[in-house]
Amino acid sequence: MYTITIYNEARQPMHINQLLQHANSDLPLLQANFGLERESLRINKTNHCLAQTPHPTALGSRQFHPYIQTDYSESQMELITPVAQSSKEVLRFLGAITDVAERSIDQNQYLWPLSMPPQITEDEIEIAQLEDNFEFSYRQYLAKKYGKILQSISGIHYNMELGADLMNELFELSGYQSFIDFKNDLYLKVAQNFLNYRWFLTYLYGASPIAEKGFLNEELSQAVRSIRNSHLGYVNTDDVKVPFDSLENYVTSIERHVETGALSAEKEFYSAVRLRGSKHNRDYLTKGITYLEFRCFDLNPFNNRGITQETIDSVHLFILAMLWLDTPKKLNQALDKAQELNEKIALSHPLTKLPKEAPVALILEAMEALIKHFKLPSYYDDLLTAIKKQVENPKLTLSGRLFEHIKHASLEHFGQQKGQDYHNYAWQDYYALKGYENMELSTQMLLFDAIQKGVHFEILDENDQFLKLWHNDHIEYVKNGNMTSKDNYVIPLAMANKVVTKKILRENGYPVPAGAEFDNKDEALRYYSQIKNKPIVIKPKTTNFGLGISIFETAASHNDYEKALDIAFIEDSSVLVEEFIAGTEYRFFILDGKCEAVLLRVAANVVGDGYSTVRQLAAQKNKDPLRGRDHRSPLEIINLGDIEMLMLQQEGYTPDDILPKDRKVNLRGNSNVSTGGDSIDVTETMDPSYKKLAADMATAMGAWACGVDLIIPDTHLKASKEKPNCTCIELNFNPSMYMHTYCYQGPGQVITGKILAKLFPEVPIHLTSSNHH
Amino acid sequence: MYTITIYNEARQPMHINQLLQHANSDLPLLQANFGLERESLRINKTNHCLAQTPHPTALGSRQFHPYIQTDYSESQMELITPVAQSSKEVLRFLGAITDVAERSIDQNQYLWPLSMPPQITEDEIEIAQLEDNFEFSYRQYLAKKYGKILQSISGIHYNMELGADLMNELFELSGYQSFIDFKNDLYLKVAQNFLNYRWFLTYLYGASPIAEKGFLNEELSQAVRSIRNSHLGYVNTDDVKVPFDSLENYVTSIERHVETGALSAEKEFYSAVRLRGSKHNRDYLTKGITYLEFRCFDLNPFNNRGITQETIDSVHLFILAMLWLDTPKKLNQALDKAQELNEKIALSHPLTKLPKEAPVALILEAMEALIKHFKLPSYYDDLLTAIKKQVENPKLTLSGRLFEHIKHASLEHFGQQKGQDYHNYAWQDYYALKGYENMELSTQMLLFDAIQKGVHFEILDENDQFLKLWHNDHIEYVKNGNMTSKDNYVIPLAMANKVVTKKILRENGYPVPAGAEFDNKDEALRYYSQIKNKPIVIKPKTTNFGLGISIFETAASHNDYEKALDIAFIEDSSVLVEEFIAGTEYRFFILDGKCEAVLLRVAANVVGDGYSTVRQLAAQKNKDPLRGRDHRSPLEIINLGDIEMLMLQQEGYTPDDILPKDRKVNLRGNSNVSTGGDSIDVTETMDPSYKKLAADMATAMGAWACGVDLIIPDTHLKASKEKPNCTCIELNFNPSMYMHTYCYQGPGQVITGKILAKLFPEVPIHLTSSNHH
Repeated sequence: MYTITIYNEARQPMHINQLLQHANSDLPLLQANFGLERESLRINKTNHCLAQTPHPTALGSRQFHPYIQTDYSESQMELITPVAQSSKEVLRFLGAITDVAERSIDQNQYLWPLSMPPQITEDEIEIAQLEDNFEFSYRQYLAKKYGKILQSISGIHYNMELGADLMNELFELSGYQSFIDFKNDLYLKVAQNFLNYRWFLTYLYGASPIAEKGFLNEELSQAVRSIRNSHLGYVNTDDVKVPFDSLENYVTSIERHVETGALSAEKEFYSAVRLRGSKHNRDYLTKGITYLEFRCFDLNPFNNRGITQETIDSVHLFILAMLWLDTPKKLNQALDKAQELNEKIALSHPLTKLPKEAPVALILEAMEALIKHFKLPSYYDDLLTAIKKQVENPKLTLSGRLFEHIKHASLEHFGQQKGQDYHNYAWQDYYALKGYENMELSTQMLLFDAIQKGVHFEILDENDQFLKLWHNDHIEYVKNGNMTSKDNYVIPLAMANKVVTKKILRENGYPVPAGAEFDNKDEALRYYSQIKNKPIVIKPKTTNFGLGISIFETAASHNDYEKALDIAFIEDSSVLVEEFIAGTEYRFFILDGKCEAVLLRVAANVVGDGYSTVRQLAAQKNKDPLRGRDHRSPLEIINLGDIEMLMLQQEGYTPDDILPKDRKVNLRGNSNVSTGGDSIDVTETMDPSYKKLAADMATAMGAWACGVDLIIPDTHLKASKEKPNCTCIELNFNPSMYMHTYCYQGPGQVITGKILAKLFPEVPIHLTSSNHH
Repeated sequence: MYTITIYNEARQPMHINQLLQHANSDLPLLQANFGLERESLRINKTNHCLAQTPHPTALGSRQFHPYIQTDYSESQMELITPVAQSSKEVLRFLGAITDVAERSIDQNQYLWPLSMPPQITEDEIEIAQLEDNFEFSYRQYLAKKYGKILQSISGIHYNMELGADLMNELFELSGYQSFIDFKNDLYLKVAQNFLNYRWFLTYLYGASPIAEKGFLNEELSQAVRSIRNSHLGYVNTDDVKVPFDSLENYVTSIERHVETGALSAEKEFYSAVRLRGSKHNRDYLTKGITYLEFRCFDLNPFNNRGITQETIDSVHLFILAMLWLDTPKKLNQALDKAQELNEKIALSHPLTKLPKEAPVALILEAMEALIKHFKLPSYYDDLLTAIKKQVENPKLTLSGRLFEHIKHASLEHFGQQKGQDYHNYAWQDYYALKGYENMELSTQMLLFDAIQKGVHFEILDENDQFLKLWHNDHIEYVKNGNMTSKDNYVIPLAMANKVVTKKILRENGYPVPAGAEFDNKDEALRYYSQIKNKPIVIKPKTTNFGLGISIFETAASHNDYEKALDIAFIEDSSVLVEEFIAGTEYRFFILDGKCEAVLLRVAANVVGDGYSTVRQLAAQKNKDPLRGRDHRSPLEIINLGDIEMLMLQQEGYTPDDILPKDRKVNLRGNSNVSTGGDSIDVTETMDPSYKKLAADMATAMGAWACGVDLIIPDTHLKASKEKPNCTCIELNFNPSMYMHTYCYQGPGQVITGKILAKLFPEVPIHLTSSNHH
C-alpha cells in the first residue's frame, strides 16, 4: 500500500475545494456524459397484477441485450440507455427505449409507472429466468435476504461523468500532478457532498408516498415522501456501513463486507451514490473513478419515461453544486447527520415543508452562484426558480402532487390509469420512434428494430440518416436504412443511371422497354421512323420528378413527337425515347435475392358514401393515423389543391358535391404516395412467378436491396424469363421500406427487421410483425 | 437434306430483289453493326526492317486477347475492334486499339502503314509463336503453301451486319415465312452482287501499287492499283473455286475442298467476301448467316488507322447498293466476268480510268437512288459526289494519290515516314486515349489498360464514365475508374460525410482534428471557450469548393470567430469548427490496403531565370504537354487572371517584370492542380511509416480505393498509430488517379493498371509503366 500512502500525502484537497470558484466563466461547465437506468414492472391489463408471462421474445436475447434487460424478477424490466453526451440525448434515448419496451410487451400488458409495486404477493413474483447461472443464483440469494416483494421497488439510476474538456481544464487549474488522483478526489468530493445533501432530492423528487397493502410489515400511519429513500426501501442491512472519507477506506470497507459475507458481492452495496467505472472497487485507486451513479430517484409517474428533462437538468446543476460547496469538516459525523435528516424528510408527510435544520439555503445559493459565475443560460435560472417554488410549496414537489391521487390509502388506480395511458401513447404513431421523428421513417424503423433486438446503435449523422450498428466486434454502417455493406458500390451507381440499368438488364435477358438515348434533337427526330406506330414515352434521362415526360399511349404524330422532344430537352441534355408499356405498375421490394413485398400504388382518391361531399370524404380519409405530412408518416394527407381541383372538375364535380355511393373519384393523375396516393400491399396475392422474376432481375443486376418496378398487363398470366408477360421500367437503389410495412390496405410486410437480421446473422432475431402493427 | 430442299422451294428471290425499292422512306436503312480487323507489321525504327522482337509482353496474353492479336507472323499485329453499332464507333474503336498498339510496342518500333511489306526476306519472318498448337501448325502449313513473304501482305477486313430493326422491317415486307431463309437469301444476294461489283472498290481503294524488290517472282512493268486484290495477292490456289449461286452449293463446295485437301480448313477460303456467324459453314443453313466479311481493303496509308470514316461510310452505302441492285441473271458467268474485270482494274496503272466495260453508272445510280429513296442526310450526297470525282479523276483514288509517293519503284521511304508519324501521333497527349478525350482522364487510362491487357470493355454510359469490363463470364462494372464492386456501398457514403468520417477514424484511434458540428450559431458561440486559444478552421459541413471557410492560424478573437461563423452558415446549415493543423498536406492513394502513391500539390507558380518576364515564364510552363484545360489534361494551364494578378501584386511584381534567377513567385494561394498547381510525386521519398499509417486508416474505414489527405508537420519524424506525427483531414471516396501517374515532377505511379489487375486477378496482367510514360 506504499503507493497509496504517497498519493494520500500528495493530495491537496484545497485544490479541489473552491476549484470551480477559481475557474474562468467560460469553463465548459455543463459538459457531461449521462446514462439512465430505469426499472419497471410489467403489469397485466385485465387484472392489473404482475404479468406472469416470460420476458418478451421480441426483445431477443437477455444474454447480451444492452438496452432492455430483466432486473430482479421476470416481470421487472430494466431499461438502460447508452452513454449520452447531453442531458437531452439521454432522455431521448430513454424515451425511445421505453417506446420499444412498451411496444414489445404483450398488448395486454403495460409498464407500471410507480416506484412502489401494486398490491402483490411473494408467489406472484418469479425470479428472472436468466441463462447466466451466477446472475440467477445471485437473485435467489437476494430473494432470501431481502424478500422478493422488497425487490419489486423500482427506480431510476442516474449516471454522470464530467466532460473530458471540463475535466482537463479543472485538472490544469488544480495543480495536481496525477490526473487519476485528481479525478478520484474530485468525484469523491462530489459523492461526499451528495450524501450530505441528498435529502433535498428526496424532498423534491421523492415519489413513493405509500405502500399497497401487505407490502410493509407495519403499515405507515400516513403518506410520506419516499418509502424507497427511507430505511423501509430496498437498502443494505444495518451491518453494512461504508465510509466515504477516503477512497482507500471506501474500497477496503466494501471488500471487508464481502469477506465477512455481509455483502455477497461488491455490487450488493446499495448506496445513494456509488463510484463507478471499474468492476472491482480497488481498481479506482490505480485507474481512477470514471463516473458516479446516483441511485435515489423514484419513478416520476407523471412522465412516461419516469423522469423529466427538468429533473435531469436540475439534478445536473445540483451535482455541480456538490462540487462548488465545501466538503463538511467532520465528514463521517456530518454524513450520519445527513442520513438522519434524509430519513426524516423521506418519512415526512408530502405536504410538510423542509425541517428547519435542513440547510437548504446553502444548496440554493450554490446553485445560484454556479449560474452566475458561469453565465449559464436562462433555462437554469428557470429551473432554480421552479425549485425554489417547490421549497416554498410542498404541493409542487413530486410527492406533493402525487398525494392528491391517493385514494383509500392506495395509488393503484392512479398507477393503472397512467400506466395504460403511457402504453397507449407508445402505440400512437406506432410507425415512428419517439424522439427520432425528424429522421426518415425507414431509419426510425431500423433504429426501433436495433433497440428491440439489442443491437448497439450510434447515430453518426442525424440529418444524413447515418447509423453505426454493432454487436460485439462486428460493426455495420447503414445509411437511409437500406444502404449497407451488403451492396457493392458500383451497383447502386448503375441503378441510378436509367440507361445503364436497362443495358445490364437487357444483356441479362430481362424485359425492358425498347428505346434509345439521344444527345441532340436531330438524331432523336431521325429515330421517329422506328417508333412512329408505337406508343412511346419521351423523358429526360436524369430527371426523377416527372418533369419533362410525355406519354403517347397511341402513336405520336411527327409534330407532337418533336414538341415532346423539345419539352424533354429543356430538362436534360440527354433524352430517352422508350416504348410505352401499358399495364399496372407494381413495386417489388427485393432483399438478398428474395422478394419480400409487393406494393400497388393508387392515385389519391375518394369513394362516395351517398351523403358526404368530396371535401368531407377527403377529410375523413385524412383522419387515418397513417396520414401525415412531409414523409414523416407512411401516407400523405390528401390536399385539395389546384391539381386536385382540376382533376375533380374534369370528372364533373366540385369539392362540395356529394358523391354517389361507391363512386370513386381520382384526385391525382399520378399514383405517388407522396401526393396522397394509397398503398396496397399485394405481397400475398401476387403470383409467385412475378416475385421470382423480379428477384432474379435484382440478382442479375447484382443488387442486394433494390426496388423493382414492373408493369404487368395481366397478373393472371404467369411470368417467366422466356415469357415475362411484364416489363421492368426501373430499378430503385434507395427503395422506400416503410411504405411496404404501413399500408392503406393489406397486411403490410416487415422489411427493416429483415435487413437487421441479415446484417447481424449472429444475433438471434425473432422477427415478429407485432412491433410494426 | 430433305429440309434444305423444302427451303429451296420456299425461296422467293423475287421478294429479295426490289425489296428496298418497295420499302418506305423511313426505313432505318443505315442501321448496322460494324467490325474492323486490321493487320500491320511491326517495323524496327533503326533499320526499318521487320521487328525481330516477340509480341510485346505489355499486351498480356494472346491466348484470349480480343483486341490485339498476332496474325501470321510474330511481327504481324492484328487489331480487332469489338462489334460497333455505328460506323463512327467502329472507327473510334480501331483508333483506340491502334493507339494502344503503338504505345505497347517497343519505342524503337512502329506499325507499317502499307499493305505491301517493306523489302524483306523469308528468313526475317518468324511464324507467330502461338501457344495454341493448332494455330501454330496451321501457320506452318500456310507458310509452306503460300510462302511466308506473301503472308506478310496486310489489309483490313470490314464486317457488317444489318441492324435488327432494319432486318425485321425488311423481313415483314418480304413475305417470307422463315426469318432464317430470309436472312440467308438477303446476305447471299449482297455477297453475290459484292463479288459482281467489287472491282469498283478495287478502283477506289486499291492501295498496293508496287511490291518492293524480291517480293514478286516476276517484277511488274509498272505501278498498278492493287497487287493485293489481284491474283498476285494472297489468294487461294486456282483449284479452289466456290460457287455463290446458292447457300447449299457454297457450303458443300467448301466442305468438298476441305475433304480433298485443297483447303486445310474452312477458314482457309480467302474470298473477297465471306459468309459469317458460325464456325462451320453448314450451320448457316439452319441457323442463318449473321453477317458478311468483306476482305478486299488495302491499308490506306494516309490515315493512321488504315481506313477513313468516309471510306467506311461509302462502303456501307455501296453494300446497301448491292441489295438495291438486281442480281445478275446468269450468276456464275457474271461472277467469272466480274473477276476478270477486277483483275484488270487491280493491275491497271493507278492513273488510268475505269475501263469502258465496267458498268460504273449502274452502281452510282443505285447509290444515288438509295440516298433519294430513303432521304439520307446530305453527308451521303457529299460522299457520292466525292466518289464521282474519283471516277472522273483517277488521281483522286487511293492508288492515284499513292502513285506520287513512289520513288525509284519503291514506297519504302513513304511508308517509313508515315509509319513513324503515326507512331509519334500515338505518343502525343500520351495520357489520353484517342477518340475518348471527352471522358475523364482516369477512365481513359483504365480503358487503355483494358484494351492493352485484353479485358473486354463496353462503355455503358459515356457521360457517366460507366464501363462494363469482362473476361470470360466474369463481369465488372466501373464508374469513374475507381468505383467498383470492391468497395461496399456504405463506406463511400460515409467518406462523403466529413463528420461521419472523422467519427469513424477517431473511434478507431486515428488522428483527426478535434472539433464539433453546430446547427446553430448560439451553440457554436458557446463553444468559443473551448477553442479560444487554439488555431482553428471554421467551415460549412458539406461545401467542398472552399467557400465559407475561415482559417485562424493563431487564436481567433470572439468577434472574428463570430464573423467566421456567419460566413460559414451562409453556405450550409451545419458548420464545423475544427482545430487547425499546421504542416504540409499530402495525398496518399490507397488501394486494397496498400499505399500506391503519395502526391504533394504545390500552388501555381513560376520560377525566374533572370531574363524572362512572369508572363513569359507562365507561357513557357504552359508549353508542357501535360498542361491543358478543363481537366482533360493532367495539369492545368496557368492563367494570369484576376486572382493571379492580385497575388503577383502582393508579391511586388507585375506580369511584365523580369523575375530574378531562382526567384519563385506563387500565383495562387491554393494548391489545387485544377488552378494551375504543380503535382509532385513523392511516393518513393515519403517515409514508409506514413504510407502504412494512411493505408491502415483506409483499412479501418473499410475503404478499398481511397485518397487519404494527411497534414504532416515534419516528414523526418516517423509515424505510428500511437505517435502519428500527422493528422488526417479528409478521406476521398473518388480520388483522382491520373494526377499520381502524370506529374509535374517525380516518376509518377501506375494506378489504373493496378485497379484492373485487382478486378481481374485471373487475367495475366504484366504491369509496366511504359504505356503511361
